Amino acid sequence: MEKLRETIGKIESVDGTFEEKTQNRLDSLTKPQGSLGRLEELAKQIVEITGNEMPKLDRKVIFTLAGDHGVASSGVSAYPKEVTPQMVYNFLAGGAGINVLAKHVGAEVVVADLGVACDLKAHPDLIIKKVNYGTKNIAEGAAMTKEEAVKSIENGIGVFEEKFRALGGIDIAGTGEMGIANTTPSSAIVSVITGKEVNMVTGRGTGIDDARLQLKIKTIEKAIQINKPDPDDALDVLSKIGGFEIGGLVGIILAASSLRVPIVIDGFISSAAALVAYKLEPKTRDYMISAHFSVERGHAAIFDYLGLKPLLDLNLRLGEGTGAALAIGVAEAAVKILTQMATFDDAGVSKKQN
Amino acid sequence: MEKLRETIGKIESVDGTFEEKTQNRLDSLTKPQGSLGRLEELAKQIVEITGNEMPKLDRKVIFTLAGDHGVASSGVSAYPKEVTPQMVYNFLAGGAGINVLAKHVGAEVVVADLGVACDLKAHPDLIIKKVNYGTKNIAEGAAMTKEEAVKSIENGIGVFEEKFRALGGIDIAGTGEMGIANTTPSSAIVSVITGKEVNMVTGRGTGIDDARLQLKIKTIEKAIQINKPDPDDALDVLSKIGGFEIGGLVGIILAASSLRVPIVIDGFISSAAALVAYKLEPKTRDYMISAHFSVERGHAAIFDYLGLKPLLDLNLRLGEGTGAALAIGVAEAAVKILTQMATFDDAGVSKKQN
Repeated sequence: MEKLRETIGKIESVDGTFEEKTQNRLDSLTKPQGSLGRLEELAKQIVEITGNEMPKLDRKVIFTLAGDHGVASSGVSAYPKEVTPQMVYNFLAGGAGINVLAKHVGAEVVVADLGVACDLKAHPDLIIKKVNYGTKNIAEGAAMTKEEAVKSIENGIGVFEEKFRALGGIDIAGTGEMGIANTTPSSAIVSVITGKEVNMVTGRGTGIDDARLQLKIKTIEKAIQINKPDPDDALDVLSKIGGFEIGGLVGIILAASSLRVPIVIDGFISSAAALVAYKLEPKTRDYMISAHFSVERGHAAIFDYLGLKPLLDLNLRLGEGTGAALAIGVAEAAVKILTQMATFDDAGVSKKQN
Repeated sequence: MEKLRETIGKIESVDGTFEEKTQNRLDSLTKPQGSLGRLEELAKQIVEITGNEMPKLDRKVIFTLAGDHGVASSGVSAYPKEVTPQMVYNFLAGGAGINVLAKHVGAEVVVADLGVACDLKAHPDLIIKKVNYGTKNIAEGAAMTKEEAVKSIENGIGVFEEKFRALGGIDIAGTGEMGIANTTPSSAIVSVITGKEVNMVTGRGTGIDDARLQLKIKTIEKAIQINKPDPDDALDVLSKIGGFEIGGLVGIILAASSLRVPIVIDGFISSAAALVAYKLEPKTRDYMISAHFSVERGHAAIFDYLGLKPLLDLNLRLGEGTGAALAIGVAEAAVKILTQMATFDDAGVSKKQN
């Protein structure tokens, strides 16, 4: 608990110190004012977060955390839970969607086991931060103990801080996850924290049919009814209806915020983790960049609650950090606009007349 | 006229030859089927266009064409027309938004003068294909002669074909433009071809105030009233209320389609050119990828007419090809998903159960 308290304590407000200066620079560049829209907003946000007036996004890292879910045994997913470790090996071999997209934008993928249900084969790039061998079935009781919830967050903080130290800093980070059935606890978290009804925030995950979707909704309703998580106690929510990789992502978001690193939130599951991080410390929101609007039902409820606006809308629903990777590419473009374009004076271009 | 007819004659239908095979490959990759949404659609479109089952987007080119507009003297823009040549020099010096974003995605920028109102200083990278020294004021008569309209298109075809030959092929191309006041002829074209009222398809361009916007709308209404362009005769529309760089972009789109090169359509002005290209040969639509949803009012009318769905929505309104550059980055990501991800069999990952 000490590590968690300490990390939260270090998170500062993003206070707009550089706002005027950055706006002036953007307006001095050879383009009509504001004509690069969200790229300009992104550049301003990244300057404020990093405190660097001319940022460079060289060290880009996506944290893809894995965990299993007891609720998978209730039949809420289209895939067997063996897929969780299989996909971890796929990440380590470089064959998954996140590997391809991260490489495309020049980002490194950090893979960590927060709670896969089996012992994974050792691999030089695999970080083992296992809290337990999968959560318990939330439809039958709490997913984990309160101590395990804290540990999952602190393990996530540890993963981030170790990478930060190893690279001597991180310029931008993204969240990602793998865990068969993890849209189920995510929808449960979103329903409890935003107060929306379960059927309004529960979708088809990897692609389940109507019958399975109804079962999933009933399972989540039961999980909430049995566990009675307190919406105002983020640790209670995480421990009763969460997941180990979700807790780990809460830690990634807290650690990034405490170290003033822009954190790109991937899709639905990552956004559920962002909700928990926000409930623990609302200042984290200023460090978040929402990558994309997932196909998964319920994503909009999170954006409304957090006041975030997703950057992309490409009908993605893969997770792993794939949307975050694409958004990191856009964020780097935004920063390059700020730092590499010529000014009106440099280029000898006439300014606006009215 | 011969070159134009010949190019149009070479444009083939995109007939779905590879559809099943590409879909099978996408479904064999380690991800839930369809979970990469628009990336998968893009990959399929690029395979169909190129006829290459495993495409690589190495040779990426953005064609940024410049031209001046007589209607600028009616006070429809916030910038003086001197900015057109100034920005051309900025493109050549590498300081503009398009230079920064093209470099970010590994694309080359080809800059061509289709009708700037002055003689530009020679530069090794500047292509001179000037049709005339700016168009005439469309509020007073035709922008150009029918012969000039044909020449502007054929010059655009020439710019594309020469680059295609020089590189030994182009894997993906984007459109871009520079021309003070060019949203005015673009709105006129969109109104005439889509049948929408002028005030529904006329926006603030580089950022004009309310008074200037009203003047702009009245100017366009007058231009249409005086010239009476025939909506079903694309050359009539282009010559009476178009522009030289717009005609050049029509040529770029026709040439790309004739050579089976995916063509990424940038913002509002490029999309107006896409409308003209489509009226000349509807098959061109299959080669088009719409980059983004511009802030400029009237862009939606073009998408509705062409049945295209923009890829990005980032509140951009700069033009130059900046949105096309970002979209080319996404298109390359899409192709890498298709060609670089591991299959379920390769990775030993279990498939879906239901």
